[in-house]
Amino acid sequence: MKADVKNLEQLFPQLKTYFSPRVIGEVNDVFVKITKTKGQDVPWHTHDNEDELFYIVKGSLVMEIENEDSFTLNEGELFIVPKGVRHRVYSDSECWILLIEPKVTLHTGDVKSEITRSIEEQM
Amino acid sequence: MKADVKNLEQLFPQLKTYFSPRVIGEVNDVFVKITKTKGQDVPWHTHDNEDELFYIVKGSLVMEIENEDSFTLNEGELFIVPKGVRHRVYSDSECWILLIEPKVTLHTGDVKSEITRSIEEQM
Repeated sequence: MKADVKNLEQLFPQLKTYFSPRVIGEVNDVFVKITKTKGQDVPWHTHDNEDELFYIVKGSLVMEIENEDSFTLNEGELFIVPKGVRHRVYSDSECWILLIEPKVTLHTGDVKSEITRSIEEQM
Repeated sequence: MKADVKNLEQLFPQLKTYFSPRVIGEVNDVFVKITKTKGQDVPWHTHDNEDELFYIVKGSLVMEIENEDSFTLNEGELFIVPKGVRHRVYSDSECWILLIEPKVTLHTGDVKSEITRSIEEQM
């Protein structure tokens, strides 16, 4: 077999649109996804039963948590939104994010919006 | 709450020993761990039921897969060792690795060795 190594510097530029996570791998019951963001297109939402990990590969991302002060995640920083916590993200400039979340997770959680993808395309 | 942001540049230097993964977070049924390696202290081993993700934060890591050509994972590269695949890793210089693996995973899999940690300390 040719080893299936994923190079993030090469993969992110292949993403055609913002806010459209793509699956790049799986570890048992979780998907590993990449997504890039720019602007503010994610509605407030909650994942009732799933934690969601954000790791910033490049750029920075503003994380808003309901009833909390918002904060910025910078390159090399990692944050896990616990299940049941209402949140929203945005970035002024392009931000590259590695996501780890259970396979059942819809990226906009309980909220259906124009950007909701029910099945993410595999890369 | 003070947001629990993990900065990898700050966390890795806190690891006192090589080949001793530390849990830095959890996403449902998986642990997020960090470990640093230098040299060759990991025996050949297999995780019968768990996939194991390696993401190289800094440095490079040689991945050996039984009956395959070994290959090098460089900074920014990600590789998932599928369940049941016998493997071993080493690095000539210090390498920083982010690991994602099911909570039940022992990092040396089916093999007990001097470096095996049954319960990783939380950071």
